[in-house]
Amino acid sequence: MKFAAPLERLIESLRKLPGVGAKSAQRLAFHILRGSADDARALASAIVEVKETIRLCSACFNITDTDPCLVCADASRNRAEICVVEEPHNLVAIERSGFRGLYHVLHGSIAPLRGVGPDDLKIPPLVERLRDGSVKEVILATNPNVEGETTAVYLSRLLKPLGVRVTRIALGLPVGSELEYADEVTVGKALEGRREL
Amino acid sequence: MKFAAPLERLIESLRKLPGVGAKSAQRLAFHILRGSADDARALASAIVEVKETIRLCSACFNITDTDPCLVCADASRNRAEICVVEEPHNLVAIERSGFRGLYHVLHGSIAPLRGVGPDDLKIPPLVERLRDGSVKEVILATNPNVEGETTAVYLSRLLKPLGVRVTRIALGLPVGSELEYADEVTVGKALEGRREL
Repeated sequence: MKFAAPLERLIESLRKLPGVGAKSAQRLAFHILRGSADDARALASAIVEVKETIRLCSACFNITDTDPCLVCADASRNRAEICVVEEPHNLVAIERSGFRGLYHVLHGSIAPLRGVGPDDLKIPPLVERLRDGSVKEVILATNPNVEGETTAVYLSRLLKPLGVRVTRIALGLPVGSELEYADEVTVGKALEGRREL
Repeated sequence: MKFAAPLERLIESLRKLPGVGAKSAQRLAFHILRGSADDARALASAIVEVKETIRLCSACFNITDTDPCLVCADASRNRAEICVVEEPHNLVAIERSGFRGLYHVLHGSIAPLRGVGPDDLKIPPLVERLRDGSVKEVILATNPNVEGETTAVYLSRLLKPLGVRVTRIALGLPVGSELEYADEVTVGKALEGRREL
């Protein structure tokens, strides 16, 4: 025997979410069952709404419910700088740091082993955006891992010939961290990237 | 800046679920955003449906979409035995073991420190079910922890005077476990509950 059919259906649906196994799907379902009807309705309609209204910005491929997205539509942003990130949530991280230029979201990184090449990413429209010469600098903020570095190197070679300045975010020790706990590769990068004080 | 409003609303709703923090709410939201529209719709309607159709069985307080629940309505069950559990998912665990009697779900355990007394649980209707004398045995299957034991002792004192047999599930070593890794309290209980072979 199992639970009543509607509860089983909810547990099944929840199990499809990432990191949700049989036990936690059951726990989530019971929570929804016990919680307020308002919370449940809000969750259900948020799920439906997100699928119906969220699209990609036609300029930078950020996720948005308007087109162009709020960043691209903001007249106060510096249109001469484009920060390239792998995923939409990376954009949010950069944005929190106070960056005031524009973005370009690749929706992935070059990963030959997984069969992801440059044309599977939003790279062709990035090249297109540089065509009119208004963009002066492309800041590569892909992740500091193998795939992110590969993507950065690829983009650098592709974009420099177009006459744009191409830069890479700095690798080094995180603010507030301690040298003692940093891995040797990070320390190496931090030394390599040292600057005059 | 944050994400587009519909996405923020979904993240907020997901954060209300147990064990879901800011990061995992974001991960779940992105999964829903990227997943199929069918899966999203199925999840949303399962959430709504579970709130609309699931209720408690008026006899045993199991969660159900019919009343009485499938167990109580099953004519092949042994109506002389009632197994008392704390929560609906405990019922499922007992059911898997092949038990063929009826159940009574308390919806909690006596916990004076949290201000939960006998009247906050489904104890009065349990007493009511024993009134006609058709139930011969009440099996207490509350959890083997402080609150579950307290509840079992309380119920035993309450129900025995009604002329019903009251039993407690055995405490001991789990099947397939090893003595070496068992805690001393469990081993003590296992010795205490030893039986003639």
